[in-house]
Amino acid sequence: MAQELVLGIDIGGQTTKCGVVDARGAVLAQTVIRSDTYDNVEPYIAELADALNRIIKEAGAEGRIRGIGVGAPNGNYYTGTIENAVNLTWGGSNTIEFAKLLSKAMKGIPVSLTNDANAAAMGEMTYGAAKGMKNFIMITLGTGVGSGIVIDGKIVYGHDGFAGELGHVAAVRHNGRPCNCGKTGCLETYCSATGVARTAREWLQLSDEPSLLRGIENISSKDVYDAAKEGDKLALKIFDFTGRMLGECFADFVAFSAPEAIVLFGGLARSKEFLREPIEKSMNANLLPLWKNKVKIVFSQLKESDAAILGASALAWEL
Amino acid sequence: MAQELVLGIDIGGQTTKCGVVDARGAVLAQTVIRSDTYDNVEPYIAELADALNRIIKEAGAEGRIRGIGVGAPNGNYYTGTIENAVNLTWGGSNTIEFAKLLSKAMKGIPVSLTNDANAAAMGEMTYGAAKGMKNFIMITLGTGVGSGIVIDGKIVYGHDGFAGELGHVAAVRHNGRPCNCGKTGCLETYCSATGVARTAREWLQLSDEPSLLRGIENISSKDVYDAAKEGDKLALKIFDFTGRMLGECFADFVAFSAPEAIVLFGGLARSKEFLREPIEKSMNANLLPLWKNKVKIVFSQLKESDAAILGASALAWEL
Repeated sequence: MAQELVLGIDIGGQTTKCGVVDARGAVLAQTVIRSDTYDNVEPYIAELADALNRIIKEAGAEGRIRGIGVGAPNGNYYTGTIENAVNLTWGGSNTIEFAKLLSKAMKGIPVSLTNDANAAAMGEMTYGAAKGMKNFIMITLGTGVGSGIVIDGKIVYGHDGFAGELGHVAAVRHNGRPCNCGKTGCLETYCSATGVARTAREWLQLSDEPSLLRGIENISSKDVYDAAKEGDKLALKIFDFTGRMLGECFADFVAFSAPEAIVLFGGLARSKEFLREPIEKSMNANLLPLWKNKVKIVFSQLKESDAAILGASALAWEL
Repeated sequence: MAQELVLGIDIGGQTTKCGVVDARGAVLAQTVIRSDTYDNVEPYIAELADALNRIIKEAGAEGRIRGIGVGAPNGNYYTGTIENAVNLTWGGSNTIEFAKLLSKAMKGIPVSLTNDANAAAMGEMTYGAAKGMKNFIMITLGTGVGSGIVIDGKIVYGHDGFAGELGHVAAVRHNGRPCNCGKTGCLETYCSATGVARTAREWLQLSDEPSLLRGIENISSKDVYDAAKEGDKLALKIFDFTGRMLGECFADFVAFSAPEAIVLFGGLARSKEFLREPIEKSMNANLLPLWKNKVKIVFSQLKESDAAILGASALAWEL
């Protein structure tokens, strides 16, 4: 019998990445479609199904697809729905029965859906840095800060399917930065890619310390990384501050679920050479004695271009 | 066939409570022995076994004991050991194979062991306020702050068996009160019974506001409760402060595991008339919109005198 395969789909605000994946995590065929050209989910699903059928054919995978895994903003694993996804042009303010619609368009192939950070955690556990781990926390450091929590080998979904919003714990309890969620002081206002850029802009205003970052318009976290590479002191201090804040919050996460490791993924995690030391130092300083120097900080090993597809595809093996 | 029964044992620093419990949570016979009259675990176990055999006889439960559940400080569920329990005179700095020793002394009846807060969570889920709940967080407000986290109907033990130390998350990140654990700003330095007494002493020094608490030596949380009952403004402000701090931390816990409820237990939880409102208010103010006004704050319904035994006994039903 031919080897079973799965489809992985990562839905982002602008683009949707899809791939045919085998059990070892090899992406046999992949493609990208736009997510943002429809106001309505039906024509989007139709185009997505066309794309999927194309890559199934390309990979010679007809009749061998065991299931489809989808990572999507606000995806609810329990219900297979996407709820209030304001970043999706067709997401709007209603509840979309996405898994059901896609399964129908794909002639009954079962579909499993979760949010992007949970999908990343599944990918890491199935093919990546967390292979063999039963207890770890995935933190995605991108435009925002997302998380996927694994306990006893399973993603934590909680009572309503939305557990694992660690980007919105209070890194700063009072007078913190305002967050898009309506609260203040959330971890993601400081430690996401946009948070790092925000720190840079704030600190440039607060001092007249010379820095390579001065004069750059619309500073991004990449600019801060490039400056740090050049040895820029302010840029290095920004990473130190960011890492320390992550480490402090990670210590609280460890007190919750006692994980073997915290796995970091996403654009900002590429700055690991500047983040690892302050994270480890401040996490250990804030851990109970029983955990000091025992919890690993691990950076994702998945090829960045494949990671989103792999994460979503990992869900499908459970179907 | 006669109904199956279990034994519940709650080991505290001074006393050990034991009881014979039926499936509905009725305590059929119980007794208390001293925990602190031995330097060594063997004679303690011998006395404990005597006490257990006595209550088994008293309840007419010979041959009907399905298992023994033990709640003990620093109890490790995975290994059945008690590790570095400095509060136990026979706990010392070594690892005691408690479950194995007790099972041997009780002619092979299986023994399951965990820490006291996890046992409380099991009790609440099996017989109490969390009956039927699959996802909740138990917070014990006693001398310290303990926690037992339930996800998908199971206690979270984590990678090493010690998950759920929520009394040691950072309620105050910088310049907080020193904690017995060696860190500063831990939740339990503010929101335990001793934390409340500490707040009272601090605030009495910081102002000359008149209060019924002035002049009391060695103020306890009970004194603060009694004063609040009399309408004492300072005492009421202390409970407001304590409740707000709990609520802020609870919001972070919800972001982690999305529980249906947070269940409060322990001496300080008896002050629920003063704690409920500030907890609910500040928790909801700090929750993501999707959880606002959806997570219940529940106070334990177990009879206090039975609760410790019931919690431990609940473990034994899983054996």
